[in-house]
Amino acid sequence: MNLNGYGRGSRIARGLETADLVLKNAQIVNVFTGEIIKGDIAIADGKIAGIGSYTGAEERDLQGKFVCPGFIDSHLHLESTLVTPAELVTVASRHGTTTFIVDPHESANVSGLAGIDYILDQTSDVDANVFVMMPSCVPATSIDDNGCTLTAEDMAPYLENERILGLGEVMDYSSVVNAEESMHRKLALFENKVRDGHAPFLSDSDLQAYVMAGITTDHECSTFEYAMMERRNGMTVHIREGSAARNVEAIIRGLVENHMNGEGFCFCTDDKHIEDIEREGHIDHNVRKSIALGMDPVAAIQMATIRSAVCYGLKGIGAVAPGYQADLVVLDDLERVQVEDVYYKGRLIDKTSEIVVKACAEELKNTVHVGEFSRESLKLTSPDGVFRVLEMEEGQITTKKAAVKLADGVCEFRSDSQYQKIAVVERHKASGMVGVGIVKGFGIRGGAIASSVSHDSHNLIVIGDNDEDMELAVRELIRTQGGYTIVADHKVFDTLELPVMGLMSDAGYQYGNEKLKGMIEKAYSMGVSGGYDPFITLSFMALPVIPEVRVTPRGIYDVLTGEFYRN
Amino acid sequence: MNLNGYGRGSRIARGLETADLVLKNAQIVNVFTGEIIKGDIAIADGKIAGIGSYTGAEERDLQGKFVCPGFIDSHLHLESTLVTPAELVTVASRHGTTTFIVDPHESANVSGLAGIDYILDQTSDVDANVFVMMPSCVPATSIDDNGCTLTAEDMAPYLENERILGLGEVMDYSSVVNAEESMHRKLALFENKVRDGHAPFLSDSDLQAYVMAGITTDHECSTFEYAMMERRNGMTVHIREGSAARNVEAIIRGLVENHMNGEGFCFCTDDKHIEDIEREGHIDHNVRKSIALGMDPVAAIQMATIRSAVCYGLKGIGAVAPGYQADLVVLDDLERVQVEDVYYKGRLIDKTSEIVVKACAEELKNTVHVGEFSRESLKLTSPDGVFRVLEMEEGQITTKKAAVKLADGVCEFRSDSQYQKIAVVERHKASGMVGVGIVKGFGIRGGAIASSVSHDSHNLIVIGDNDEDMELAVRELIRTQGGYTIVADHKVFDTLELPVMGLMSDAGYQYGNEKLKGMIEKAYSMGVSGGYDPFITLSFMALPVIPEVRVTPRGIYDVLTGEFYRN
Repeated sequence: MNLNGYGRGSRIARGLETADLVLKNAQIVNVFTGEIIKGDIAIADGKIAGIGSYTGAEERDLQGKFVCPGFIDSHLHLESTLVTPAELVTVASRHGTTTFIVDPHESANVSGLAGIDYILDQTSDVDANVFVMMPSCVPATSIDDNGCTLTAEDMAPYLENERILGLGEVMDYSSVVNAEESMHRKLALFENKVRDGHAPFLSDSDLQAYVMAGITTDHECSTFEYAMMERRNGMTVHIREGSAARNVEAIIRGLVENHMNGEGFCFCTDDKHIEDIEREGHIDHNVRKSIALGMDPVAAIQMATIRSAVCYGLKGIGAVAPGYQADLVVLDDLERVQVEDVYYKGRLIDKTSEIVVKACAEELKNTVHVGEFSRESLKLTSPDGVFRVLEMEEGQITTKKAAVKLADGVCEFRSDSQYQKIAVVERHKASGMVGVGIVKGFGIRGGAIASSVSHDSHNLIVIGDNDEDMELAVRELIRTQGGYTIVADHKVFDTLELPVMGLMSDAGYQYGNEKLKGMIEKAYSMGVSGGYDPFITLSFMALPVIPEVRVTPRGIYDVLTGEFYRN
Repeated sequence: MNLNGYGRGSRIARGLETADLVLKNAQIVNVFTGEIIKGDIAIADGKIAGIGSYTGAEERDLQGKFVCPGFIDSHLHLESTLVTPAELVTVASRHGTTTFIVDPHESANVSGLAGIDYILDQTSDVDANVFVMMPSCVPATSIDDNGCTLTAEDMAPYLENERILGLGEVMDYSSVVNAEESMHRKLALFENKVRDGHAPFLSDSDLQAYVMAGITTDHECSTFEYAMMERRNGMTVHIREGSAARNVEAIIRGLVENHMNGEGFCFCTDDKHIEDIEREGHIDHNVRKSIALGMDPVAAIQMATIRSAVCYGLKGIGAVAPGYQADLVVLDDLERVQVEDVYYKGRLIDKTSEIVVKACAEELKNTVHVGEFSRESLKLTSPDGVFRVLEMEEGQITTKKAAVKLADGVCEFRSDSQYQKIAVVERHKASGMVGVGIVKGFGIRGGAIASSVSHDSHNLIVIGDNDEDMELAVRELIRTQGGYTIVADHKVFDTLELPVMGLMSDAGYQYGNEKLKGMIEKAYSMGVSGGYDPFITLSFMALPVIPEVRVTPRGIYDVLTGEFYRN
């Protein structure tokens, strides 16, 4: 705050000058003491100048409604929801989330620093505070064929950017505890900032070794018992409630049963699709669900606000108090927690205005670079006729390793087979690498389904029951420079174009939602089992850290043994 | 931590290597969860490597004793206890305080940056973590005649020192809320660090304006109601229990009655004399007293450890957890909280070793520079025979403004008078300035008592019932370059030399304690009222921020009107 700004705020606080805006007759949730304070909120220059009895150039009578700080999403990936960053932020902000701590590691895997710059740039003028954690694991593993490698040296210039809060979720647990230099150079770079964890179900002693490296948060915790193990080590637990992973119930139930007040816990969404946000809310949903589970409403609001601000060292955010940014949520009551109004920097957010999609640099819309590729690339043979199989399971992203013996040693399926082919086509460096395998359980017949969203490397991934349609699906995604596509009966049925790094649509989220609905219906009609979200499940089949077996551009990968196979 | 160090710690945590030291069978106070965890504590390279079941090169069986983190004193002045910094720290560390956050503003008022360097240097190799807050108000007011002025520019080079945590207690409330530039330059300099407050009994709106400047702590709070007002603004309340100011009872009682867990509160001593530390303890005393008042023992320990660490952003201090410095206190139980053993960086502190006084630079032992001074300087006349009077009150450092009419307009007392003279002699810049006034209530007869400790400017202050003895007392302190002295019947009775900046003895604290005892007895025998600690009360009579009237080198000062008088 500059001195003139402070001087004015001080005079307003002391009743010597009139505020810009006064919210009269509020019931203010004080997140420091847990009290509900009746009074006016004086706002000047986007900040809170005082709580008490004030007059303003503009005054609004809240008639006893509750006011709490704007909510904070302490960990999310903007780009994994297919829409451009500003769209997601804007929609979520209408539900009361005014601060977002994002890890752009999808973008970074495709476009490196340019991808991170894209996220920073696209969110630089939204009506919300958007902070960024530098992705720590790009590529995710040493066997990934992604677009870029981010080293500590690459990240160093970002240290001075005040929107960069630290190092993003450190997924590569093994390189941490084994003291690998490249990982520890990144950890050291962010020594005075926050280093986020990603530590699902480590053993007690492994977790201690992991924490010793300075990692202080985790959002992968899905049980109360594990949450307590993390808390004992001083970690802050981000309780996640996204589109897929939903951990509020398990963890909040534990807090309630043990009469805990939520200190050391806060909320995040990790990955939450825009249609889910519109349907049930964003961080406000975490708050509501927690209260429904028996959590004290003020304690739930503290987890959604100040506890996250403290965790990330955010000054002037997360409380309704003098000097704090006037990011406010007006609630009708503290049981249903219906968000009536949202203020960002003292301005009421218009919930009905059209959301504009910001243009992005052309090079970020031309990231699908496939080398030599033909129907031949999809051929799969085995001298002894035995093929490895990725056996998928409904409702899971894990797979089982299986095998099948096929006549002639050539993998060609009839449309009624329980097996299909899966292939991953390297698309960053035009290397021509293609990995092909057999998959069981997905169930598509008479066509192919393909995606350029394929964690974490985001190569092209395709499943189909015939090579012609699989080839066509890949060619369609090359044509659109990324997207989701379905090919049926040798023709493209439909394509949701995701031209921004092959991850996001810039056609507006309503367009994408509509299109996706029809495509998912079509996938089910082609035999995809109802236990899968077809595109999301597909997007995990190349991720080489999820057991037991995956397909990568280098071939079939046995996660448990670390071996590659060509069939 | 370097990579090799981390690698070793990680292997020890995971049971792959042997620790340096293992404290077996401990009951560990987990300050994150509030649990008591049974287990071993593995220590390597001064840090905690793991909690669980471990083996070590050395093992000590704690037989179920309790282990909590080393205590933190979140605000204290080392030099106001007359002993050298390392002595105080060493004595206090034997009572379990392993971290000290000190504000060297006494030294700074005498010797400026050299005084701060002295504190940093003297405590650089003690068995404790000593952090420093840069004194914000040197001089304390614009009318002080102290030794140095500290500007933001002077402080800037200290920003990079990792032992400097921020800006020390901002006493000059008025310059803050009135947006005075010199004060706000200091506040801005420490924008990303902690800015300590000093805010006794501001109005609600004044406090809000004060907090808006980024000030986040206060240790001057003496009631629960005011503490809550501070908490509502997000301040951390340092609950003080020193030699004079004792606030634990009032504030802890409020916490207990309101079922609060101590979040946002921590402990400090501010000013605590070494003999009081030896008698009743240091921060451990705050903990014990809180428990006796009904506070949950673990909550009290949290206030003495992690809550202060969080407040000051201290990483790796304040918890018994992997990666944390092995600063540990072993307690017999959690009710009496008797400190059995103290570990600093994994080494047991020897409670019986001799405490060595470190030498200091000669220039810091020659700081009493008095200009022209004679018995004439102490003359006090009034044309109309009316003199202003500082009326002292037992048990208070405040005074009342009064007046007396004396015959002949010349102030000469008989030894049975209820009035004496008080004078302050400027001693930093040899300006020859001497302020003289009349004091009532102190009661000394047949001599004079003088001190070079005189907040915050630390000029020479003297009270006596005749000019000859007053002059002699001043000359004695010039000779010793600072100290406490008593003159009786025209002879120096005794002097406690305080040659280090005129504030501290370097003769060892036992020497000082012994001497002081005899001198205080003598003062009482000379008529000083039992309601005063003679030297401490004297040391506040020149402090121009305490109402109603003071004596300064510029004359008698009316704190309420801001006017000076020569009689």
